[in-house]
Amino acid sequence: MKNYLKGALLLGSLFIVGCSSLVEKKEQANIIIKNGTLLTMNDKREIIENGVIVIKNNKIISIGNEDLLNKYTANKVIDAEDGIIMPGMINTHTHASMSVFRSLADDVPDRLNRYIFPLENQMVSPEMSYLGAKHGAMEMALGGVTTMVDMYLFEENSAEAVKEVGLRGVMTQNIIKYPTADGKEKGETLNRAVAFVEKYKNDELITPGFGPHGPHTVTKEELLKIKELSKKYNVPVSMHVAETDVEFNKIKKDYKMTPVEYLDSLGLLNERFIAAHNIFVTDSDIELMKKRDIGIAHNMVANIKSAKGISPALKMHDMGMRVGLGTDGPMSGNTLDIIGQMGYVAKLHKLDSKDRSALPPKKAVEMATIGGAKAIHREKELGSLEVGKLADVVIVETKSVNMNPIYDPYSALVYSANASNVDTVIVNGKLIVEDKKIKTVDSKKVIKDITEFKEKVQKVAETL
Amino acid sequence: MKNYLKGALLLGSLFIVGCSSLVEKKEQANIIIKNGTLLTMNDKREIIENGVIVIKNNKIISIGNEDLLNKYTANKVIDAEDGIIMPGMINTHTHASMSVFRSLADDVPDRLNRYIFPLENQMVSPEMSYLGAKHGAMEMALGGVTTMVDMYLFEENSAEAVKEVGLRGVMTQNIIKYPTADGKEKGETLNRAVAFVEKYKNDELITPGFGPHGPHTVTKEELLKIKELSKKYNVPVSMHVAETDVEFNKIKKDYKMTPVEYLDSLGLLNERFIAAHNIFVTDSDIELMKKRDIGIAHNMVANIKSAKGISPALKMHDMGMRVGLGTDGPMSGNTLDIIGQMGYVAKLHKLDSKDRSALPPKKAVEMATIGGAKAIHREKELGSLEVGKLADVVIVETKSVNMNPIYDPYSALVYSANASNVDTVIVNGKLIVEDKKIKTVDSKKVIKDITEFKEKVQKVAETL
Ligand SMILES: [Zn+2]
Ligand SMILES: [Zn+2]
Repeated sequence: MKNYLKGALLLGSLFIVGCSSLVEKKEQANIIIKNGTLLTMNDKREIIENGVIVIKNNKIISIGNEDLLNKYTANKVIDAEDGIIMPGMINTHTHASMSVFRSLADDVPDRLNRYIFPLENQMVSPEMSYLGAKHGAMEMALGGVTTMVDMYLFEENSAEAVKEVGLRGVMTQNIIKYPTADGKEKGETLNRAVAFVEKYKNDELITPGFGPHGPHTVTKEELLKIKELSKKYNVPVSMHVAETDVEFNKIKKDYKMTPVEYLDSLGLLNERFIAAHNIFVTDSDIELMKKRDIGIAHNMVANIKSAKGISPALKMHDMGMRVGLGTDGPMSGNTLDIIGQMGYVAKLHKLDSKDRSALPPKKAVEMATIGGAKAIHREKELGSLEVGKLADVVIVETKSVNMNPIYDPYSALVYSANASNVDTVIVNGKLIVEDKKIKTVDSKKVIKDITEFKEKVQKVAETL
Repeated sequence: MKNYLKGALLLGSLFIVGCSSLVEKKEQANIIIKNGTLLTMNDKREIIENGVIVIKNNKIISIGNEDLLNKYTANKVIDAEDGIIMPGMINTHTHASMSVFRSLADDVPDRLNRYIFPLENQMVSPEMSYLGAKHGAMEMALGGVTTMVDMYLFEENSAEAVKEVGLRGVMTQNIIKYPTADGKEKGETLNRAVAFVEKYKNDELITPGFGPHGPHTVTKEELLKIKELSKKYNVPVSMHVAETDVEFNKIKKDYKMTPVEYLDSLGLLNERFIAAHNIFVTDSDIELMKKRDIGIAHNMVANIKSAKGISPALKMHDMGMRVGLGTDGPMSGNTLDIIGQMGYVAKLHKLDSKDRSALPPKKAVEMATIGGAKAIHREKELGSLEVGKLADVVIVETKSVNMNPIYDPYSALVYSANASNVDTVIVNGKLIVEDKKIKTVDSKKVIKDITEFKEKVQKVAETL
C-alpha cells in the first residue's frame, strides 16, 4: 500500500473513531421506554410527563424526561405512545394452578369441602400444577402482574411454569393436615416443601417458601416446624388467615384465642409472614399484626364473591401496614389481574365506610404496586420505578376508547382500565408481553391443553 | 331465431332454472353467525351448542344448530370460533355525553353541586353533547351494549351521535328546575324535549323521551306536564329516583311521602317510566313500583362508588319486576359497558345478603339482556335471541387467556370476561363492531376531538 494512502486511511479511521466516540457518549442500555405518563410510585409519588425509563440487564438505571434520550441508547426502544408507564403490579395471593377449574361450580355453598377438595384429590398432579400455573401466570402477565405470591400443591411444578412465563414468583408449597394428591402420608407435604425450598432457594425469579393452608387446617406441630424452617432458610410463609367464621370459631373454641393471636402464640407472625384475607380480625389483632410487621394480602373480589365480608385492609394501609392486593385463586375471584382488583377495592371501601372520598385511586395504585412489594418485604427492590430497583415495568395503553379521556392517570387505571388495556410487560429486564401478546410461551398451546384437561375434569365433576 | 334453437335455449333455461332452484332451496339471508355457544335468554333459557343464528334485514329469522347452514345462505357468514353468542346488552341508564369529563374530580364530596353542575354550565353545548355521546356510544358498542337509555342536555345532538354509531337509543331530554346550558329560561328544556320528541318519534333506532332529572330537582308543575306529554306522545320517561338521602329527606319534608309515593301521587309511575337507582326505597315503595309496572335501572357500580348504597334490585328481580342494569354516566361509574356491571352486581348482592349463592351468573345475564328489555317495556322485540325479534346480537370471544376454560358460559361472562372480550356486535341487523373494532364511525377522530376538548375542560376545572 502506498504510504500516502495509508496516511489517508489512518486519518479516515481517526475521523471515524472521533465520530463514533461522539455517538458513543450515549451509554448503552438494553431497553428504553419513552413517551408515556410515568407513575414512579416513589415516596413522593412523582409523575413524569413524557417520561423515560432506562433498563440495563435486570435493573432500572435511569428515570427522567426526554433529555435521557440524549444520554442513553438501547437495543430496544419502546414508544409508550402516551400510555401510562407504571411499576409491575404484585399479586400477593393466588393459587394459579386452579386456573384449570375456573368457572366450575361457582357459588355452590360450602364449595371448599363439597367441590374443591374432592376435585383436587382426583385431578391434581404435577402436570396439572404445571399446566394451571402456566395458564394463570400468562393471564397475570397479560394483565400487568409481574410478581405473584402463590400457594399450591406440587408447587415445584407451578414454579417451573411461572419461570417459563417469566414472572417473578413467591411460590409456597401448600401444607395441610388432610391427605392430598401431593401428600398421602403425614409430613409428606412438609418434606416436599423443604425439598422445593432447597432446590429453588437461589433462583433469580422464584422465591420458594412454605404455604400452611390455614390456622385450623394445619396441625400445631407442623405450624411450629414451619416457623423453624422458614427461619432456617430465611424464606416466606404465606397463609390464609382469619378468612372464615368457621375458622375463627374453631380456633376460639380450641385455643381461646383469635386466629391471629393463635398464630402469634406459635411465633409465626414476623417479617417473613404474608397473611391472606384477614377478614375476621379484631382491632387488637390489627395492632398485633402491625407490631409483628407482617405482610397483608387483601383479596377483595374473592372475599365478596364468597360473601365472607370486607377486610379492614384500608384501615391497615392507613396505619402504615404492609398492604398489597391479591386475586386469590381463579376458582375464587375468577380473574387473576390486579387492575380489576383496584376497581373493586376503591369502590367497596367507599361503600363500607359510607364515604365517597375513601380510598381514592392513588391509594389503590399504591396497594397494587409499592404496597404489594411491602407485603412481601421487598420494597427495596420492587414496587416502584426508581433507579437501582429491579426492572419490572408495565405500560397500560391509552389508545382504546374506554381509556379516554384522562384527567388523572390514577383514576384512569382504577376506574376506566381493564386487564386488556395492558400493552407491555417487562419482568427482571426481560420483555414478556408486547402488543398485548405473551412472548415467552405458546399461549395457544396452553389454552388447547387446558381445554383438553377441562374435558377430564367435567367427567369427574359430574360424579361429585 | 330458428325454432330448434329456441327450443334448445328454452331447455337450457329450464335446466338452469332447475339447477339454481336446487341451490336456491337455501333461503337468502343477510347475516349468519355460526359455531358458537348460543345463549338464547328465551323463557326456557335454552343454550344451543354449535348454535346458528340467521338474520334478514333487521330481524332474527331463524335460530338453531348447524342444520340451519343447509337451509340458509347469507352475504356475510360470521364464524364465532367457539365464542359466546348472546343478545345485545341493554344499558338502562346513562348520560353518554359526560364521557368528555371522565376521570375528572373523581371522589370529590358533594361532587354534583361542587363540580358537575358548574362545569356543565360552562362546557355543555350541542357540539359537546354530540361529541361525548359519540364517544360514549362507541364505548358501549365495543363492550356489547346494543341499546342504551340516555338522559342529557341537548339530547337531540346526543341522539344524532348515537344513530351514527348505530346503537339503539332511548334518548331522554334532561329537564331540571335550574338554568342549564340548554335552558336558561323556565320551561325551555321542556319545550326542547317536545321538539325533540316530535322530530324523532318515528325513528327506527332512536326512541325519544322525557328525562326529568329527579323528584326534588324538577318542579311539580313540570312533572305533571311531563306526565301528560309522555302519555300524549306515548314515549318513555327516564328519571333518577330515590338515589340520595338528600332527595329522600327533602321529599319527605315537603310532601310527607317517599320519593316513590310522591311520583306516584303525580301519576308518573306507569309502563312508560324507567326509574334509575332506587336505593332509598321502602318495602311498600317496591310493592307500588311493581303494581305500576315501571322499569328499574340498577346502577350498582355508580351507586357504590358514590357510597350511596346497594339498591334492593335483586329482591325486585325475584319479585318478577322489570330490572335491567345501568352504568350511569361516565363521571359516575366511569365505564359504560354492561359486562363490568354484571360482575359487580353478582358479587355485591352476595355480600349484601351474606349468601354466596345469591344472584348466580345466569341471573346477572338475565338482568343485562331480557331484564333490560323488560325495563324499557320492549321485551317483545329485544333482550333475547328468538325468531321474530330485532337482530341485536353480540359475540364474546373465548380465545383470550382470561376467558379459559369455560365450564359454564354464564359464569365466564359474569366472572371472567371484561368489555374487551366483545368481538362482534350487530344492532338492528347491521354489523357495527367486527374484530373488536367499530365500523360505523372513525374512532381515532373521536378520541382526537375528545382529547382536544379535554384541554378546554381542564382550564375551566382549575377555576372551580
Ligand atoms: Zn387462597
Ligand atoms: Zn344518572
